[in-house]
Formats: sequence, C-alpha cells, structure tokens
Amino acid sequence: MSHNLHNLPFATRLNSFASNPDAFWSDLKGKPTPLQMAQRAATVEGLTVLDLNYPDHFIGHDPVELARAIRDAGLDISGVAMRYYSVPQFRLGAFTNPDASVRRQAIDLTKKGVDAASLCDAPHLTLWMGQDGFDYAFQMDYARAWDAEIEAIREVALHNPDVMISIEYKPNEPRSYALMPDAATTLLAIHDVGLPNLGVTLDFAHVLYADEQPAFAAALVARHSKLLGIHLNDGYSKRDDGLMVGAVHTVQTIELLRQIKKDGYSGALYFDTFPDVTGLDPVAECEANIRTVRHMIDVVDRLDARNGLVDAIDRQDAVSSNRILQETMLQTLHP
Amino acid sequence: MSHNLHNLPFATRLNSFASNPDAFWSDLKGKPTPLQMAQRAATVEGLTVLDLNYPDHFIGHDPVELARAIRDAGLDISGVAMRYYSVPQFRLGAFTNPDASVRRQAIDLTKKGVDAASLCDAPHLTLWMGQDGFDYAFQMDYARAWDAEIEAIREVALHNPDVMISIEYKPNEPRSYALMPDAATTLLAIHDVGLPNLGVTLDFAHVLYADEQPAFAAALVARHSKLLGIHLNDGYSKRDDGLMVGAVHTVQTIELLRQIKKDGYSGALYFDTFPDVTGLDPVAECEANIRTVRHMIDVVDRLDARNGLVDAIDRQDAVSSNRILQETMLQTLHP
Amino acid sequence: MSHNLHNLPFATRLNSFASNPDAFWSDLKGKPTPLQMAQRAATVEGLTVLDLNYPDHFIGHDPVELARAIRDAGLDISGVAMRYYSVPQFRLGAFTNPDASVRRQAIDLTKKGVDAASLCDAPHLTLWMGQDGFDYAFQMDYARAWDAEIEAIREVALHNPDVMISIEYKPNEPRSYALMPDAATTLLAIHDVGLPNLGVTLDFAHVLYADEQPAFAAALVARHSKLLGIHLNDGYSKRDDGLMVGAVHTVQTIELLRQIKKDGYSGALYFDTFPDVTGLDPVAECEANIRTVRHMIDVVDRLDARNGLVDAIDRQDAVSSNRILQETMLQTLHP
Amino acid sequence: MSHNLHNLPFATRLNSFASNPDAFWSDLKGKPTPLQMAQRAATVEGLTVLDLNYPDHFIGHDPVELARAIRDAGLDISGVAMRYYSVPQFRLGAFTNPDASVRRQAIDLTKKGVDAASLCDAPHLTLWMGQDGFDYAFQMDYARAWDAEIEAIREVALHNPDVMISIEYKPNEPRSYALMPDAATTLLAIHDVGLPNLGVTLDFAHVLYADEQPAFAAALVARHSKLLGIHLNDGYSKRDDGLMVGAVHTVQTIELLRQIKKDGYSGALYFDTFPDVTGLDPVAECEANIRTVRHMIDVVDRLDARNGLVDAIDRQDAVSSNRILQETMLQTLHP
Repeated sequence: MSHNLHNLPFATRLNSFASNPDAFWSDLKGKPTPLQMAQRAATVEGLTVLDLNYPDHFIGHDPVELARAIRDAGLDISGVAMRYYSVPQFRLGAFTNPDASVRRQAIDLTKKGVDAASLCDAPHLTLWMGQDGFDYAFQMDYARAWDAEIEAIREVALHNPDVMISIEYKPNEPRSYALMPDAATTLLAIHDVGLPNLGVTLDFAHVLYADEQPAFAAALVARHSKLLGIHLNDGYSKRDDGLMVGAVHTVQTIELLRQIKKDGYSGALYFDTFPDVTGLDPVAECEANIRTVRHMIDVVDRLDARNGLVDAIDRQDAVSSNRILQETMLQTLHP
Repeated sequence: MSHNLHNLPFATRLNSFASNPDAFWSDLKGKPTPLQMAQRAATVEGLTVLDLNYPDHFIGHDPVELARAIRDAGLDISGVAMRYYSVPQFRLGAFTNPDASVRRQAIDLTKKGVDAASLCDAPHLTLWMGQDGFDYAFQMDYARAWDAEIEAIREVALHNPDVMISIEYKPNEPRSYALMPDAATTLLAIHDVGLPNLGVTLDFAHVLYADEQPAFAAALVARHSKLLGIHLNDGYSKRDDGLMVGAVHTVQTIELLRQIKKDGYSGALYFDTFPDVTGLDPVAECEANIRTVRHMIDVVDRLDARNGLVDAIDRQDAVSSNRILQETMLQTLHP
Repeated sequence: MSHNLHNLPFATRLNSFASNPDAFWSDLKGKPTPLQMAQRAATVEGLTVLDLNYPDHFIGHDPVELARAIRDAGLDISGVAMRYYSVPQFRLGAFTNPDASVRRQAIDLTKKGVDAASLCDAPHLTLWMGQDGFDYAFQMDYARAWDAEIEAIREVALHNPDVMISIEYKPNEPRSYALMPDAATTLLAIHDVGLPNLGVTLDFAHVLYADEQPAFAAALVARHSKLLGIHLNDGYSKRDDGLMVGAVHTVQTIELLRQIKKDGYSGALYFDTFPDVTGLDPVAECEANIRTVRHMIDVVDRLDARNGLVDAIDRQDAVSSNRILQETMLQTLHP
Repeated sequence: MSHNLHNLPFATRLNSFASNPDAFWSDLKGKPTPLQMAQRAATVEGLTVLDLNYPDHFIGHDPVELARAIRDAGLDISGVAMRYYSVPQFRLGAFTNPDASVRRQAIDLTKKGVDAASLCDAPHLTLWMGQDGFDYAFQMDYARAWDAEIEAIREVALHNPDVMISIEYKPNEPRSYALMPDAATTLLAIHDVGLPNLGVTLDFAHVLYADEQPAFAAALVARHSKLLGIHLNDGYSKRDDGLMVGAVHTVQTIELLRQIKKDGYSGALYFDTFPDVTGLDPVAECEANIRTVRHMIDVVDRLDARNGLVDAIDRQDAVSSNRILQETMLQTLHP
C-alpha cells in the first residue's frame, strides 16, 4: 500500500458558502454568485478544488470563463454535478419521466452537462438521479423504468467518451424509493449499460442511509467498476444528515479511507456537508473537516505500519483488530 | 397476463408445526420429528407442499424414504433449504470462514444438500448465506471474502447442473452485515458466478428489511436472473418479524403478487412466518395466510380486469392507481 | 362505542393547493394567496375545514378578515399551526435557541399565533417544534434545553387559557434529533408544564417515523393527556413521506381510526400529504383520501358490529383478529 | 464535575463466558455452571463485578451460597436481572399476558427475584419486560395492557422497598413492539407507578435501536427519575448488535460517559456484548472493552480540563465542539 492519501486534494460543496453571508460580505445584495462563493471557499486553508452544479451554477455564465475565473480565485474544478431537482418538470422523473418529451429534455440537458464538464476540464460529470424513482406501489412499471434509465445513461455516456460519467446513488430522498438506491443496483446498471466511461461516486451519508458498510461498498465498486468520487460527511444512517466528518462513524470513516488507499483511489476528497442548514460558519466547518481527515489519514498510515492488523483481519479476529484500532486512535492518551 | 396465480401451490415452514404441540399430540415426548410435523402440516386446508431443511431435517433419515413418507402424508416437496446456523463452526462464516478447512466443510455439506434435493425430487436448493458477513469494521477483507463466496457458489452449482440453486438474501441478521444483503448484490454475485442453474428467492420481510419495494425487487430479479422462490409474510421493515401475510403491507403484497403474475412465476407460495415464537396455533395461522392470499389474488385479477390501472401506471399517476386499488380492495363496502 | 367517526370534518394542508396551478388558474401570476388556495380547496367534494399557518398565511392579512373570507369560501378553520422554519434566525432553535433574545422572539411570535387562533375562532394552536433539537453530540446541554422548552411552552399556554396548545412531534427532521421526537417525550413535557390547555397532535407518518404503532401512541396520549389533532397520511416509516392515506399501512390506519373512535376523538381528520412534491393534482388527491377514509370508517364500524373481535383481542389472539380483519376488509370479494 | 469515572467498577454479562469453552476448560462436560463462568470472568484484568440472571443462574442454587461462592472467586454482585424469555408461558407476555394466572406467575416470580437480589446484597433488580408487547395491530387492548404493566411494577416495587427496581427498555425484540420501548415511555410508566425505589437502566445499543442520542436519554432519565444501570456496547442502530464498546459510535459513547459523570452516576459500567454469538474469546473481548472505556474516560477528563468546550456547547457551536473533540481524541497523532 504505497499510495499516499495525503496527496489527494480536498474539495467541498460550493453552496455551503452562501451560509452566514454577513460573516464574509459586508454589503451583499441577495444571494452570492457561484464565483463569489468560490472566492469565499478559496479562503479555506487546505481547500484546493471544488465541484460545480449543472445547470444551476452555469446559468448566465460561459463555462470556459467561469472555470477560468474560479481557477484565478485559486481553486481547480474537481467535477461537474447534474442537478435535476431545480427543473420543475423533472419532479416526477428525469430519465424515467412518464412523458417521452420530458425524458428527452433530461437527456439533452445532461449532454449539455457533459459538454460543460469538458469545457471546464473537469474530470467527470456526476449523475445523482434523485428524481428517478417512485413514491407509491402501483405507480411505476419497474421493468420499463429500468430500461429507460439504462438507455438514457448509455446515450449520455456515448455523447463524449472522454468525459467520465459517475453515478451517485441515494435510497429514499426526494422520492420514497430511488431507481439507483445502493452500490449494487448502480453496479448492475453500469453493467447493463456496458460502456467504459462509467463509474460510481460514494457519498458516505448516502451509503449509511442505504444500510451499507462504507468500506464494503467501496470494495464492491472497485471489484465491478471504478470509484470516481468520494463524498465525505457523516450522519445517523436514517437520512442524509450532511454532518461534519467523524461526527458519528469515526471508525467506519477510517476504514473507508484505508480501503480507498488500498484500491488506489486518485480523485478528490469532497465534503458534502450542510453547514448552511443550521447556519454554521462554512469556512470554519470545512477547515474542521480537513483537519479531521488529515488526522484520520495519519491513523490509516499508522495502522498500515503496525504489525498485527492484517493478520487479525485474515483471522476475522475483531477483538484484535478493534484493540489495534482503539490503541492507534487513542493510545497516546496513555503515554 | 393469462398466468393464473390460483394454480400455484401453497407451501410453509415445517418448523412452525412444533408450536403448541399439545393441541395436536396428546402424548408427544420431546420435539416432534420432521415427519410428525409434516403430518400436522397436512391437516392445513389448502396446503399441498413444504420445504425441508438440510441437514437438520435429514439427520437420521434417508432422503428418499423421508420424501416418500412426507408424500404419503399428502404433501409434496417444494424445495430443500441449507441451514448453516445449526453448525457451530460456521458461526464466523460458511463460504467466507477465515479457516480454509471450515470453508471446505461448508462447500461439501452444501453439495450433500444438492444431492438430498435431487434424491427428494425437490426443484431447487435454497442457500441463505446467513453466516457469511461481518459484525465489525476492520474484521474482513471484503474483496477476498467476495471471491471466496463466488467460488464456493460456483463449485456448488457445478456439482449438479440439474439442481437449481436459489440464493435467499437478508441484510442484517445474524451477522450485523451480510455479504448477500439485497436483491442487487445477489444478482451481481449470480452474474459473477455465471452459471445457468442459479436464481433468487425473495422473502417479503427480508425485502422490506433491505429497504426495497417488493415488486421492484421482483422485477429486478426477473430482468437479471430467475425468481425461483417467494416467501410471503410481513413485518415492520426494521427486522425479520415473520408476521402473517397482509398484517402490515397489504398494498405492497398485492403489488408483488401482480408483478410475479406478470413475470410468470411458477413456483410455490411459501409462508415463512413464525407462529411458534409467540405460540400461535400453526394450523389456524397457515389457513389464515392461505385465505388472505386467495383474497389478494382475487384483488389482483380484478385489478387486471379493470380499465384504467395500466393507463394510470403509464402516467405514473398514483392518485388514479391508488383510487382504483382502494376501490378494488374495499369498494363493495360501499355498494 | 356509539361515537360516530362519519361525523368528523375532513381538513387538509392548504399549501398542497399551490400544486399544478395551471389546472385551476388560467392566468395566475406567481404563487397563489392563502385565500386563493382556500378557494381551490373548497372545490374538493367532502372537504369542510382547513388549518392556517402562522405567521406565513397571515402576513399582510388581518386574521379576522382572512378567517371571514375563508369561511365565505365555504371552509371553516380547524386550527392554526406555528411555522418556525420560515424564520431564518430560528434555524438553530426556537424555544431552545442558544441566544436568549432569539428565544424571546420565538415565544413572542408564538403568543401572536395564539392571538391569531383566538381571532380566527380556531379551536387550537399546533406547535411543531421542528427547529428545537440538535444535529451533533457535544452540541447541546440537554438539561438546560429541556428546561428552556418547558418554560417557553408554559409561558405560551398561560398567554390565553382559552386557546388549546397542541404539540405535534416528529423525530429526525429538519434537525437530526428533535427535543420532542415521540409521543412519550411529548407527554413527559406536557406533564412537566402542568397546565390544562395542552394536548397532542398525532401525525401518522411522524408516528411511523418514530417507530410507534399508531393506535398505541393514540392510547398513550388518551391515557396521559388529550388528543387534539390527527394528521392522516402514510409512508414507509423511514422518513416523513406524506403519502396518501392507506398507501402502505392500511391495517394500522384502520386500527388507529378504531382507537380514536373508542377514545371519543372529536376533532378534524386532517390530511397532511404532499401532492405538490411530485406534482399530483391536489383536488383529486384530497378526494381520494376522503374516499379511502370513508371506506376505512365503514370497516371500523363493521368490525365493531362483528362478534369475535373483542374476544380475540382479549386473548391477544392475532390469528383470529387478523382473520376477522382480512374478511371484513376483503370478504365481499368472495361473495 | 469532580466525580471520577475511573472509580466505577467494570461489570459484564456472565453468559459470555460460555463462549469458546475449550480455551478455558480442558475437559468440560456440557455447559459451564454460573460459578464456573464467574471463575472464568474473574480472570479478566480489571473486571470486579457481575450481574446474575433470575431465575436462570439461580436454578438449583441457594442465593446466599451462590453469591458467597462468586465473591470467593473474586467478583462482587452488581445486580440481578429478571429473565422472562426462558419461561415458555411468558412468550405472549409476562405482566401483560392475556391470562390472569400467567400474569400472577410473572409477578410472583419477579418477587422471588427481588428476594434473590436482597439475599445476594445486590443493589438492584433489573426488569427488561421483553415479552410485554405485541406483534400485530388488533392484537392488544393498549389501555388495559398499560394498566396491567403499571399495577404489576407497583406490586413488585412494594414487595421490598429496600431493593431498587431498574427498568431496562428495548423497542422491537423479541416482540415487534415493546410496551417499554424507549426512555420517555419508561419514565411515564415510572411516574404512573409513583414509588421511590424505581429507576432506569440504559443499554447503549437499545438506546440507538430506539433512535435516541445516548447522552440525551441519560439526561432525560436524570431529570425525571434515577439512572441505576448503564450497559455499554455498540451497534448500527437497526438492532441490538451487542458489539464491543467504541466499534461504531465512539463520539456518542464519550458524550454519554461525560453526561453520566456530570449527573454523578455511581453504579457499575456493565458490558452487554455478545462475544459468544460469533465465537470471540470472552476474556480478550472484555479486556478490550475495559481498555477502550479507560481511554474514553481519559478523553472525557481531558475535555473537561480544556477551555472552550463548555462555551462552544453554550453557543450550540458544533464546529468548535467537534474540533475540540477531534483534537482531544486524535491530537497527539500530530505532535
């Protein structure tokens, strides 16, 4: 395991920086622009990249100029993410909408997102198909919806083979049930599409929400496709809480970091947290996340440097591996 | 949809018939034998088939003679189900046990189960890999465990191509996390094994426990593999409650029956309920389940005979489909 | 049980009627006013009352005139509900906000809500303290927050003893944990406040979300306080889905209706569903809910008219009560 | 906060020591006796007390002699716990059984448990009313069951005012719904009983299972009753996993320890974990738990010694308190 997680860039959610505007802008009228939010994000110590949402952040902006302005502000673009929920006609579905003309709008909009990612030199376009699902029994013809989803993803992936398409799954929100709820369903869909420029984005809180152990989900993705994105945050497994890293599942986050180190993940470590929901300061919150993850990467490196962990795992000896973990996390409190 | 669900046989869990022994056996010493339980099951009006567990129900019995005696009692054998939890050395895993010799024992025992199914003329062997999973982060090398699971299933399926192997999934019990927790992970595994004599058994309460909509899980299985078994019961989605059919998710059960009718399911309708846990009478409980499912099949047939449901589903118009469903379920209360 | 549920008025969520505006308003500019939404709600066959939100629906309106205009439109006012989430400074808490001046604002705003309910001749003011909770361990001093909540509720209840204050609980949204998450915690708080003009509003989907059996929660409320409001809807117990009545928990809804009939509930049957989220027609959706509940009340009446159910419940004989229930729901499909 | 958690004794679950018998007993026939398990438990470094189950551990033993023999083995008795699930006629309920004669048996057996606790000089008798609940809607008359539960607890508490009765709650196992599912319902019941020798036992995994934040539940108990017992373990919030301390909710466990230090808890720190389920070595597992909790108590002491945490909590400033927590847990990895 020579792969060094300390070399991975830290990214974060741009919209968090609309939180507590008075703390940064003395005389802001209305909402900050994407560029203004990026300029505030650039003040975070250790943050070097961010994602942009399509179409939201691009409305009224030329992609090339927007990307240049953000890079001038000191941040690189780690990816572009499609946002369907901001388009009213997609409420009942994007690629699985019952109306063929709306499905076509969704596909064409997504192709424009592919173009935007390409123009921004972003490594991938993330698709969270949050609207594609159902709320009721007897609402959807599941076989037909599945085929529509697969066909649409294929058309989007074929649009530009040089842009990687990363599917981010989430089980139960905004729709009661999503068509892409968990790692394995997403991997089945990727297999059905059968194209090389597809992969998966794991969001830690979505993974918990899907009742998955994060490192197992990452291993399943590495085995069957490619891990293109990691969203770090935390929560209580019942919904998408968007909490700071390590707020609940410290051990599971450390295991996930060890797993992606093992599998050679080379993308950004992106914080998908919601400081804006309860009005936390987004700069301080992001710096806390960076500090926490740096500590956790040190724990991962110490675990790998220790004798005994690999042997304990080979024996599935949780008593020994738990002791090694607790000592490595907390040992120095007992000098 | 000409397929008639009223032609499917009803099966049930044999061990339920150890419940309330005094109500059936005046002078039973100790536990009833499998044959005695089958004789009691045969008194259930409408029950025609049952499953046997391997090795538990076969210990001290010749498979051919046991099957003949059960058929003489008036019940056919719908399948054989492997039971690993009764073997202490499999507590930490069967196909994924850290000890290679224990993995070998699990594979060899399962091959004997394949032979038993063949000797009983049972259509399939069900594998619920309940012990194959983990309780702790840092307990298991997920990639290696996945490969061990796939290799073992392949060896078992190759043992006798004429016996179908049906994988039954369940997310969180007895291990905190199972390697085969949900429909899509099971379908990924079946794809990795790549043999024709594999399929899936859906247990309604396991499906709810995995946060799946039952009819969607069935459609996903029909799309990617074969549905070989259906276990009907009910619960509150938080654990494997084993309640009577329709006790909670009436609408979802009716939708599942409609889906398997559509997909041409031809196996048994098996009740995997636990009347023994709280001492309910197993004969009355099974007859209640049969009566409920017959009512629900009538609802399915009436729904298919009505105008409007298919159109409503094509529009994903849940208001219309819900109205049609409620009227069809409850209409005649308002003559 | 001579109490007749068919005499209870049907109410619904006013904001649902902003959904699909084109279907009702040919030339609406922007969002409909509360009065316009009420006029649309009045077109629902069988709907006779509605709730108003404070301050949202009252902004720019005199309460007396607004109530008169709504009554002129043909609907009575069943209650007023406080809404804190629309006030940014309450994001981190209303009665439990760390800032004493913000807590004071929340209390004073709520007293104005009491006045508005009184001026509208609304029978009660509902308090859903959605902002009062916490997202993180080490975020809140629980003992101090509890005392602040109790003191604030007391001050509000004392403001006008003729206005009943009804507390609506919900476990995990918008805050990860609420201070008033379930029936029993709410009843403990009501006991701590110790005033007569307090009671509870049960929201079916919140009750499921809190892992409660609805009829048990209602019985606990009747035993320790007063049931002042019932919100009917449905969901999958993992979040507040806001689905149509009977979409999932048909049996549990029927049991709840039987329980409140038994306990003599005399308020409105209010539908707290979200047709606007996925763009369902709110008039058709509300009429479907009314039709479903009328069917369910008929089932309740038939259950009470049948022999055997009470005896089965006295024996805790679920097999018999389930058979009686299934026959009463579905029997006439087998003439 | 001068209270020192390092002075609290460590206790554990006696039955865990039946796990891996060969590792301790060279020639054990059948299951070990309670005294044999206690002798093995006594080999755990740092373990000083244990609980006994009534009637299970007392069958065939005189309480006074059993207690003396265990004390001779080097362990004190921290409490006695009632076990109803081992008595078949209680399957459908103990204090809430539909059969009055069975309810009487349950009450009389529990009084014998009170006597046993007194004879053992155990500080309290724990009641986990696991059988008192329901599986189905329409199975139970909730109001009558509640009254039966309250009356039975009162009779048991009155039997010997010198023995404290501690109620341990759990939401969904073995019954689908328990009558005592969470902290607040238990506190309501204690208030209804209205006697001084009642209190609550918090089991960490049960608290998570009930969707409660452990430190909030402890504060609610301290506010309304007495905390008489703490069971430490861990899990994934979906069931009673019985994992080692800190395996998942490190931060929440540390917060709980800080809360009970603040509230002056003076009982034992009892490990209710299940090493026997997957065959872990119970001595090594218990020593790992003791080591982990000692580390966590050090973290609590360091947090209390630091400036800033109390101020951050007063501001409900989760960013600051999370930073302080992470630094205190992991800081020394960055010297």
